[in-house]
Amino acid sequence: MNNLLRAAVIGIGNMGSAHAHCIYSGSISGMRLTAVCDLRPERLAWAKQELPGILTFSDYHRLLASGETDAVIISVPHPLHSVIAMEALNAGLHVLSEKPLDIRLSLARKAVETGRNSGKIFAVMLNQRTNPIFQRARELISCGHLGEIKRSVWIITNWYRTQHYYDSGDWRATWKGEGGGVLLNQAPHNLDLWQWICGMPVEITACCDMAHYHHVEVEDDATLLTRYANGATGCFITSTGEYPGTNRLEISGTKGKIVLEDGKLKSWLLKEDEQVVRFSSGQSSPDIPLDYSEWKPDAEPSAHAGILQNFTDAILNGAVLLSPAEDGLNELALSNAAYLSAWQGSIPVKFPMDEKQFDRLLDERQATSRGPLIPTVSNHEIDGKYSDRWQVKW
Amino acid sequence: MNNLLRAAVIGIGNMGSAHAHCIYSGSISGMRLTAVCDLRPERLAWAKQELPGILTFSDYHRLLASGETDAVIISVPHPLHSVIAMEALNAGLHVLSEKPLDIRLSLARKAVETGRNSGKIFAVMLNQRTNPIFQRARELISCGHLGEIKRSVWIITNWYRTQHYYDSGDWRATWKGEGGGVLLNQAPHNLDLWQWICGMPVEITACCDMAHYHHVEVEDDATLLTRYANGATGCFITSTGEYPGTNRLEISGTKGKIVLEDGKLKSWLLKEDEQVVRFSSGQSSPDIPLDYSEWKPDAEPSAHAGILQNFTDAILNGAVLLSPAEDGLNELALSNAAYLSAWQGSIPVKFPMDEKQFDRLLDERQATSRGPLIPTVSNHEIDGKYSDRWQVKW
Repeated sequence: MNNLLRAAVIGIGNMGSAHAHCIYSGSISGMRLTAVCDLRPERLAWAKQELPGILTFSDYHRLLASGETDAVIISVPHPLHSVIAMEALNAGLHVLSEKPLDIRLSLARKAVETGRNSGKIFAVMLNQRTNPIFQRARELISCGHLGEIKRSVWIITNWYRTQHYYDSGDWRATWKGEGGGVLLNQAPHNLDLWQWICGMPVEITACCDMAHYHHVEVEDDATLLTRYANGATGCFITSTGEYPGTNRLEISGTKGKIVLEDGKLKSWLLKEDEQVVRFSSGQSSPDIPLDYSEWKPDAEPSAHAGILQNFTDAILNGAVLLSPAEDGLNELALSNAAYLSAWQGSIPVKFPMDEKQFDRLLDERQATSRGPLIPTVSNHEIDGKYSDRWQVKW
Repeated sequence: MNNLLRAAVIGIGNMGSAHAHCIYSGSISGMRLTAVCDLRPERLAWAKQELPGILTFSDYHRLLASGETDAVIISVPHPLHSVIAMEALNAGLHVLSEKPLDIRLSLARKAVETGRNSGKIFAVMLNQRTNPIFQRARELISCGHLGEIKRSVWIITNWYRTQHYYDSGDWRATWKGEGGGVLLNQAPHNLDLWQWICGMPVEITACCDMAHYHHVEVEDDATLLTRYANGATGCFITSTGEYPGTNRLEISGTKGKIVLEDGKLKSWLLKEDEQVVRFSSGQSSPDIPLDYSEWKPDAEPSAHAGILQNFTDAILNGAVLLSPAEDGLNELALSNAAYLSAWQGSIPVKFPMDEKQFDRLLDERQATSRGPLIPTVSNHEIDGKYSDRWQVKW
């Protein structure tokens, strides 16, 4: 491998055009944009105009076989992520896929296996992992400062969207075209961070309300209850229909509590483990001494560019991947399991979940879905810039 | 009715002694303490010492028949509340019962019917209703300032208790002696305020973890998911095992959001109904103009004394009851339904719930309960003062 990684972006719509622009502008050290690929002629025309000197492809198979790239960034509709990733990995290319890895855990798992066998780097765009506030929360827990986790509650309801948003593409919010609603499109970042910080649960029970606020096929409101191996409980609440929403993550442990809110990490760290006090105190409801502090990151998260850089560094210099594709299986398992629970009357679903049953139930929904697999209508203008709405909102 | 109401307190343990002391000291205008009743000689000795001139009874039947009182305040173990209330009402007395009205909705309902037929005043000690912050939240919603409710989430996990607390009486935290755990003992205030502010749900699904943190029979951790007639959802999370806990109620509506936290009511009131924006905006994720404000009550809530005064005023002057016994049925319905859901594997339970099924399942638990119906061990000192821990904690 030489010291310049040749990269191509497959799908240059809203996000893909921004990735292409970012790489093309030289923002990613060691990565050079050589090609883009899209089905839509107007987007390729945009690329020729905005990204002079870059090869354009309308067929991704031809791009993969062209020898013009070492790595691909996949930014196509979700149901095509894993299929294209597998082809690219089998063609000997490194792959960075947009989130989610796929809409089906079964297919994403195959893609991850393909990646493992290929020896290539396979990452997923979980860009909120670059946020120092979530990194610090994770560290507090992994280093034991919070003790054993008792409960986590994430109210993440500030993903507000209008009907105009859903009408902006005919694939949107359909089982066939997009494969899910708020859990699959807006909240994957939060589902990922939740499990990244608190670990994966052993069981999930979910209420997913379809078309609760909007004229859509999929869920735009969801509440997940989770149970962890140590008996801890979790609650995850999200919607695209509340305004102003909330973004508040609370994690309670045997040694205190943290709350991530308003861009701050607030921590209450006990001077003595609560479990000791619980069984030794002679008072009914004692005050346990604690240290309270608030912490706010100095720097902005590096976001998408940070993930692109880390992906490049992993390939060129062996850096540890911040968001390996394998990790993307976890957040997808959470949303797939939530659907499986909700579709069967909010029954508890244990992990590992029945992926075949999920695929059958999704097949049923896709069979009557009005959405096209490949978008035929898209009103989103491409501007090649990272939009504010992809950043963490508090 | 003359202008001085003669009152007696039945059960002068922890709370009852405080009620007796409060009335005796003349704090309740129009109410005079004439008698107390308790099974335990040491408590009656305390009363003779601390409340000179007051009659003492060891048998409540004799008190009810004595002609020495117009009203009784019932502060005995929960499973005896409704039984004694019915006898008192049938004896022609007004009744103020400690919360919960009973441990069984079926029995509490009979007591409320008895009250209705008696023509007497029957109230329940839902003292947190006197808190101006909850009154204001209720008013904001009932006056339509928040529009139609979409969701409510109450994290009320600051009811921390040690094992010492549970060991302080042998009836505590047993199915027979106390009849339930955190939902029946600590959180009834919050369950009541929740339904008082947001209305009653049509369905409830609950996880109630028995002996999760303590050596007890009953639940010390609970999560309730509720569904309302308009499709709104609710979530209620409580425990006695987290430190420091949280007391945060968030209610989201079509016209904004309120959050009750840190003793403040924060409100975000939209200048335009979100539903209008949702279907008319040409933006995907618009900023909707709103007014933000914070409000903190000037005065302390009148708490128990406020309920005693209101009870007195209702009897003497026809004042509207702030906490009629009938209202106490609602919070009890919530906790009974939560148990019914949890005991059957967290299945959804619709209202009106199957009270007979609940009674059967509670009977099973009581049959093997180690708790006595009447306390035989009680380490709580009686001091006749309202303890801080009965006030709202933030």
